[in-house]
Amino acid sequence: MISVFTALRRTSYFFRTSTSINPLHKYLSMTQDTEPPALSKSAAKKLAAKQAKEAKKAETQARLKAEAEARDTDDYSKERYGKLPTCNSREKTGRSWTEIEDLSKDMVESEVLVRARVHLSRLTGKQCFVKLRHRYYSVQVVYAVDDKISKQMLKYIGGCPKESIVDVTGTLVTAGIPVESCSQKLLEIQGSSFHVVSEAAPQLPLQIDDASRPLADDGPVVNQDTRLNNRILDLRTPANQAIYRIGHGVAALFREYLSGIGFTEIHTPKIISAASEGGANVFKVSYFKGNAYLAQSPQLYKQMAICADIERVFTVGAVFRAEDSNTHRHLCEFVGLDIEMAFKEHYHEVLTVIGEMFLNMFKGLQTKYATEIETVYKQYPAEPFKFIEPALRLEWPEAIRMLREAGVEIGDFDDLSTPQEKFLGKLVKAKYDTDFYILDKFPLEIRPFYTMPCPHDPKYSNSYDIFMRGEEIMSGAQRIHDPALLEERAKVHEIDLETIRSYIDSFKFGSSPHAGGGVGAERVLMLYLGLDNIRKSSMFPRDPKRLTP
Amino acid sequence: MISVFTALRRTSYFFRTSTSINPLHKYLSMTQDTEPPALSKSAAKKLAAKQAKEAKKAETQARLKAEAEARDTDDYSKERYGKLPTCNSREKTGRSWTEIEDLSKDMVESEVLVRARVHLSRLTGKQCFVKLRHRYYSVQVVYAVDDKISKQMLKYIGGCPKESIVDVTGTLVTAGIPVESCSQKLLEIQGSSFHVVSEAAPQLPLQIDDASRPLADDGPVVNQDTRLNNRILDLRTPANQAIYRIGHGVAALFREYLSGIGFTEIHTPKIISAASEGGANVFKVSYFKGNAYLAQSPQLYKQMAICADIERVFTVGAVFRAEDSNTHRHLCEFVGLDIEMAFKEHYHEVLTVIGEMFLNMFKGLQTKYATEIETVYKQYPAEPFKFIEPALRLEWPEAIRMLREAGVEIGDFDDLSTPQEKFLGKLVKAKYDTDFYILDKFPLEIRPFYTMPCPHDPKYSNSYDIFMRGEEIMSGAQRIHDPALLEERAKVHEIDLETIRSYIDSFKFGSSPHAGGGVGAERVLMLYLGLDNIRKSSMFPRDPKRLTP
Repeated sequence: MISVFTALRRTSYFFRTSTSINPLHKYLSMTQDTEPPALSKSAAKKLAAKQAKEAKKAETQARLKAEAEARDTDDYSKERYGKLPTCNSREKTGRSWTEIEDLSKDMVESEVLVRARVHLSRLTGKQCFVKLRHRYYSVQVVYAVDDKISKQMLKYIGGCPKESIVDVTGTLVTAGIPVESCSQKLLEIQGSSFHVVSEAAPQLPLQIDDASRPLADDGPVVNQDTRLNNRILDLRTPANQAIYRIGHGVAALFREYLSGIGFTEIHTPKIISAASEGGANVFKVSYFKGNAYLAQSPQLYKQMAICADIERVFTVGAVFRAEDSNTHRHLCEFVGLDIEMAFKEHYHEVLTVIGEMFLNMFKGLQTKYATEIETVYKQYPAEPFKFIEPALRLEWPEAIRMLREAGVEIGDFDDLSTPQEKFLGKLVKAKYDTDFYILDKFPLEIRPFYTMPCPHDPKYSNSYDIFMRGEEIMSGAQRIHDPALLEERAKVHEIDLETIRSYIDSFKFGSSPHAGGGVGAERVLMLYLGLDNIRKSSMFPRDPKRLTP
Repeated sequence: MISVFTALRRTSYFFRTSTSINPLHKYLSMTQDTEPPALSKSAAKKLAAKQAKEAKKAETQARLKAEAEARDTDDYSKERYGKLPTCNSREKTGRSWTEIEDLSKDMVESEVLVRARVHLSRLTGKQCFVKLRHRYYSVQVVYAVDDKISKQMLKYIGGCPKESIVDVTGTLVTAGIPVESCSQKLLEIQGSSFHVVSEAAPQLPLQIDDASRPLADDGPVVNQDTRLNNRILDLRTPANQAIYRIGHGVAALFREYLSGIGFTEIHTPKIISAASEGGANVFKVSYFKGNAYLAQSPQLYKQMAICADIERVFTVGAVFRAEDSNTHRHLCEFVGLDIEMAFKEHYHEVLTVIGEMFLNMFKGLQTKYATEIETVYKQYPAEPFKFIEPALRLEWPEAIRMLREAGVEIGDFDDLSTPQEKFLGKLVKAKYDTDFYILDKFPLEIRPFYTMPCPHDPKYSNSYDIFMRGEEIMSGAQRIHDPALLEERAKVHEIDLETIRSYIDSFKFGSSPHAGGGVGAERVLMLYLGLDNIRKSSMFPRDPKRLTP
């Protein structure tokens, strides 16, 4: 009964203007007079809401139609504005668009065609000011009523929903007064046409201006969850546009440097048959009729590549950690930048490459992404990232000594806590003026079984962590490549050899000595920029509480 | 009972030389005299095998000890050969190694130090010939007995297990007779020392020579499964060393070209909350207390990036398909090379970029990886990959016409079967002399709901497939960016709108028209080289029956 009723209601406004009494209309009138007996309170409420909505929709449509008709008859500007049909690749006009950032002085007085978002549209008397935005660039367009631009056109432009994508033509001119709110301060466009390519819904769940506001300023703050729930809008802020360009740079510079010195990129499987590290913190996958796991690290496969004579490998790919860690720096899925390299006699051959790779990355970011870094700092101010050349390499005993001299009580072979790491970072910064350093020669006991012991003192090992702004970004080591020694060390760690048999066997047919390490791209990006949360450097972060968008 | 017995047997050879009768020995003798009552036939067999093994081990150790002693006393070459201790980074000597491929004429008569694998070691009278191998390069080292090289040394070299990694020093000389079996045919090394860096087990589960043999030659064939079960060894063949260098090139050239024309690399999550495409062919993951899925495509995230104004994006990463397809070209996990791009008026703007990206890749492979391609063809002969510039773009009706003219019965809007695709590839090759082409304007009905209909004939669509050697490598389309049209098309496909609500909503706040596509890196590599199986172009393939290594 209800479904018939509501189905009919949906068609009701078509009948309102009809003069003929058709049977459906008659039935509708009847049902309107009689309260449907089966209608519950909530259903009635829903119905009322629906009716109101339908009525409003009909009203709006009627108004729009009337406006369109008025425009079509009176409006001398009608060809100059309006909503374009949805682009379905109907034609190739050969027109040429200019990006906002490419508008320049030498183009003044020429006609330009720009496609961008309406960041803001403000109607004041006989003028309309539109701020167009493209990435971290913006320009002002001014429309003034004259013999080409009608009042109706101005009203349409003033009413265009923020975030709509528009095509604007006009003459590029020197701005009378510098436009402080735009990146193009000295140029503006005298608009002559305004066409909507894609219209945004009039209500936005968050305002780009709010999401772009520097923390220090007054005004509404958009919290991280709201940002992520509306990620498409949040990503449009200048800071986010810049962050992910820099993110492109992080991976690109990583690969560029390594490719240039003979590294081969490999791709390692993410679905693996056995859970590494005893099955803790591993995501389980249903794999046809059996089970599998998501790889926590590409390490085994990188090492297999070394054993297969690919000697210098890197891989960039998803790494999965089922850790219930809800911190500012943990993700359940991140982008691993992983290196493994055979060396001739000393793992410092590898450590030198890793250090130089990072320095090359930092320098590349500084020079190639200066605009983007500046854009990020405008919203999230931070001290520029500092480093020295060559990279500082501290050995463990020296770090312990520095901590003790600063009053920290710590044993010779105790692992560092996160606060101790941060504090050590401060001491290192004060002493060496660097946000980047390598901590070498970790105590053997606190490292995994496959770590090569130090030849000079078996209490230490040939392993290292790398730090940025006092936070650990990479753990690495010379790996044991001798099956007998590997078994011996696994026994000390009380690991059931059968569970790591295939790992041990990997080294049976001759293996070069090798070392390596892995780093999360998001962590590098976060710490390079001094951001406070890894959810700001992961485009679509995954944590124990977030699986969307 | 058995465990005590076998545990004791393990220590037995220590007692053999002992003169004292200790209680354990006595017990052992007793148990040896009496058949243990609980011992089954198979256990007895196992035991016998174990005893034989133990005895052999003891014998070998005794012999090695004797040999070592003899060497230590009599051998004037003893400093020139032997097994080095496991490298644990004890020292930095500053010595300099030369790679086999870098040995050149102008180094003749100089001393060289080379680290490589022993591919073969052959003792003939007073000479020993060693073939050293590094990637797809090899060189012969000749040792001859003289006042520096002892008979013992020669014997040691002759007995060195294949695949061991060794450090060899010697004088580079012009080869008397060209060494046809090595890549360095005109040069060889007069060896003066031979040290084992890492010794391989004497028994190999597959011989590199067998695994490297061209299909056309006589001799044992190593099947694909045996290869994969022993992947570390299999990957050492020259063809495999070359394939994965070319694989590096495929991804590098993809990114290089796109980065050069303003694309941004993004990273999309692999763990997603809802199964796309209705949950079929999706791997399920346990995600803390709930469930999640592995992404079958980064498409939604690429499109979100477009909606977030990143306009030109690519991503390289794992893609998962839970399809029970056991074919030569399907994998359950592969490396997706994905593109998405906003355009101004016509999706051909995107298709042109995609076409040029591929042509740039093919040309880059040809010029930068000529040696590697040649190396692959030596084992797996194939016609060199052909393409024309600009890329050939065929429209659907033309393809149907070509098929019909060649006698294929097919309707105007029927989807192509795999054999029909291959046949069409042959027709295209014959007519246009290209192994690469774009098939544009697919019938709307056989494409997903989000495909933009063709503006000129709604039976077709703005979508395309791309082919290499007659096999489909990429499917792509202009995506519908208008929420209303998207709903309309979803309804035609009878898709429950609520299941795709967040997808539809992505376009609510203004979206540029855009198009894109994705390709599997392994498929590109396989088809470029004309390999017969995708398991030859995936380093660690995953299929319904294979999860290891």
